[in-house]
Amino acid sequence: MDEFYLNRALALAAASVPRGEGGPFGAVVVREGEIIGEAWNQVVASRDPTAHAEVLAIRAACARIDHFHLDGCVLYASSEPCPLCLAAAYWARIARIVYANPRAAAAAAGFCDHDLYEEFRAPPEARRLPVQHLALPDAAAPFAAWTRLAQRKLY
Amino acid sequence: MDEFYLNRALALAAASVPRGEGGPFGAVVVREGEIIGEAWNQVVASRDPTAHAEVLAIRAACARIDHFHLDGCVLYASSEPCPLCLAAAYWARIARIVYANPRAAAAAAGFCDHDLYEEFRAPPEARRLPVQHLALPDAAAPFAAWTRLAQRKLY
Repeated sequence: MDEFYLNRALALAAASVPRGEGGPFGAVVVREGEIIGEAWNQVVASRDPTAHAEVLAIRAACARIDHFHLDGCVLYASSEPCPLCLAAAYWARIARIVYANPRAAAAAAGFCDHDLYEEFRAPPEARRLPVQHLALPDAAAPFAAWTRLAQRKLY
Repeated sequence: MDEFYLNRALALAAASVPRGEGGPFGAVVVREGEIIGEAWNQVVASRDPTAHAEVLAIRAACARIDHFHLDGCVLYASSEPCPLCLAAAYWARIARIVYANPRAAAAAAGFCDHDLYEEFRAPPEARRLPVQHLALPDAAAPFAAWTRLAQRKLY
């Protein structure tokens, strides 16, 4: 069945291209044999750099089941998920990811997924995006309020 | 000025906690001294596992300037951005990130940001989330359509 859902992700990707809404990427979230979320890249159309196919498919699936976790679900992606989409899958508790095109194929088409994985592998001080720690007196306030909260919900 | 904007991110984080909309995190996007996007974590309220403060602040800033890139902008985050938010910052072309609480503080409050960084550091075969490549005959179709497209827009 993996082939069926992965072909669906590929079909969504290919069909989206002429509409110019974003890159050539599609994704499908499946729970117990049912597609509960599917999407294609919408970065350009929605002016949202996080509107990757996998992110949107995960958000659609969560909206469908009205929960922020997708335990046991499988994510099918036309291309290997970039770090944004991989991290989204972790937060969503996706159980397994299946993809059709390796990151090199996306790189050949002009997308920086591979570079982004390299940035994550590099030590922070060697990355091109500086991430700086600034200690402030009130830094602990949010966590202090959080631990005082009786009904805090982890995700 | 970093202190001013970072304190704003902390204030958003602390103020959001009693509302129970998500974790105790806030973020602000600044362009040339002006706040163009700000947000707090909404994972629980919106049932969206990607509704982290930084992601929402980036999306708000992009909506404000009607573009999917935030060149030259600085992202201020109450806590060190997790891999999802770091990747979102890369895709948005954020120029610099400043944060107040290191990932260990988030871990102490029960959030898995640190674990997630460890997963990214681990070789794919050692990660707890399997990411599987499945070769299919039609895999190349989306990229083939993309390279044929005259007005393709990279992001």
